[in-house]
Amino acid sequence: MEKREKLYEGKAKVLYTTDSENLLVQYFKDDTTAFDGAKKEVLEDKGVINCAISTVIFEYLEKHGVRTHFVERLSPREMLVKRCEIIPVEVVVRNVAAGSFCRRYGVEEGTPLKEPLVEYFYKSDELHDPMVCPNHVYLFGWATREELGQMTKAALEVNELLKKFFDEIDILLVDFKLEFGRHNGEVILADEITPDSCRLWDKSTMEVLDKDRFRKDMGKVVESYKEVYRRIMERYERVEE
Amino acid sequence: MEKREKLYEGKAKVLYTTDSENLLVQYFKDDTTAFDGAKKEVLEDKGVINCAISTVIFEYLEKHGVRTHFVERLSPREMLVKRCEIIPVEVVVRNVAAGSFCRRYGVEEGTPLKEPLVEYFYKSDELHDPMVCPNHVYLFGWATREELGQMTKAALEVNELLKKFFDEIDILLVDFKLEFGRHNGEVILADEITPDSCRLWDKSTMEVLDKDRFRKDMGKVVESYKEVYRRIMERYERVEE
Ligand SMILES: Nc1ncnc2c1ncn2[C@@H]1O[C@H](COP(=O)(O)OP(=O)(O)O)[C@@H](O)[C@H]1O
Ligand SMILES: Nc1ncnc2c1ncn2[C@@H]1O[C@H](COP(=O)(O)OP(=O)(O)O)[C@@H](O)[C@H]1O
Ligand SMILES: [Mg+2]
Ligand SMILES: [Mg+2]
Repeated sequence: MEKREKLYEGKAKVLYTTDSENLLVQYFKDDTTAFDGAKKEVLEDKGVINCAISTVIFEYLEKHGVRTHFVERLSPREMLVKRCEIIPVEVVVRNVAAGSFCRRYGVEEGTPLKEPLVEYFYKSDELHDPMVCPNHVYLFGWATREELGQMTKAALEVNELLKKFFDEIDILLVDFKLEFGRHNGEVILADEITPDSCRLWDKSTMEVLDKDRFRKDMGKVVESYKEVYRRIMERYERVEE
Repeated sequence: MEKREKLYEGKAKVLYTTDSENLLVQYFKDDTTAFDGAKKEVLEDKGVINCAISTVIFEYLEKHGVRTHFVERLSPREMLVKRCEIIPVEVVVRNVAAGSFCRRYGVEEGTPLKEPLVEYFYKSDELHDPMVCPNHVYLFGWATREELGQMTKAALEVNELLKKFFDEIDILLVDFKLEFGRHNGEVILADEITPDSCRLWDKSTMEVLDKDRFRKDMGKVVESYKEVYRRIMERYERVEE
């Protein structure tokens, strides 16, 4: 499948049209941003690692019954995906308190939550991704009740699957962000699942292995992403092939 | 019913215990605050007007089947209320975009909403009343699913009743904030309904008749509250007696 035109260039990825109207190429850049793009750096190899991790995770989710936009990995930085009409609601699932949740509700970072928490944010860099309730989603017409219900259900399923997936490689899945889109009248999981979009802590040392290393200037960002990928490969490669 | 001990002094009201364990005196102060108490002034007579307005509104709501904490007005600044265990979730109903909603979602002030929007906030001055979703309410155990369902239903009923109530006196009910509490195992409407807790605009001139006059230094704060009360009395006094 060949790339044709650049459809959209985002902060971390570029989408290209293909010969097929229904398919896009998702290209993973090395660009890394935080705070709605205010902080920005190019981190060598990050795009390759993220494309690889996202590939393994989408394949794992598909195998376990989750419908995603993933078709196949085309090259180190490119994956073929189903073209979606993205629903501008970021769905966040949290297992452990971290980040903005701690600041918003005065909870100490690292506090385990009694049950997985699903939060919703309006995808808008300009407005700094403000939090929303399901009521806002319906009012603004971003998704129907049925669609948001499907997204929530899928997000909780993904959480159960990924908790297990990471637990096997001694990583605690603290939280993650998902995006969904409409494809052929169906709501499917889109975008990426990578250390850019998840909080991942080493289970024994609680070492941060995700984008917080970049946000907080902790150094060894790509090294940590590579460590996540190394563990994934060690545990899952032979099983999956 | 006599006041005994000061139970709680808030930003705008004081609660006193009474001879009855089940009843409190709610005393309306002239103190007026905004921005979580950062801005503060004493506005002469405000407490009297707010006590009077809240009285008429609670009586009107009770007459139309809404369960409230209101028992009776005892004096110009005091009402007898049922003692509640306050649920720390402020329920906001919006009919027209204004205030924080506009800033959060980039909507122009004054835009009518397609349908009434219910929002939830965690009542915490310290955290600046952060927005929450029903999911947060359940996770933190602030209210059960059943209680929040009752609060939401009651809030929408109150909205329909108050839209009509204010429409009759040429006032647009833009939005308002409610607090609920548990009393004898039942969830009832508590706190106050006043120009401190509602946005009220004159329907023909769009003049602001509520606490935004204080927040935005527009002057004539108590005068506007008095105008609201004057219209209420003119329209409702003879009907109610
Ligand atoms: N399958 C898909 N079809 C269409 N758009 C997609 C698909 N998957 C992801 N997207 C969108 O493509 C963009 C991915 O690039 P990214 O750099 O993450 O952008 P952004 O800066 O907007 O987050 C996102 O806006 C995302 O919503
Ligand atoms: N019926 C009631 N029983 C117990 N507490 C109540 C009742 N009605 C209102 N309250 C609480 O009393 C306080 C009223 O005073 P206020 O000045 O508004 O306080 P605050 O500064 O906390 O908003 C609020 O905290 C409110 O939640
Ligand atoms: Mg993105
Ligand atoms: Mg109050």
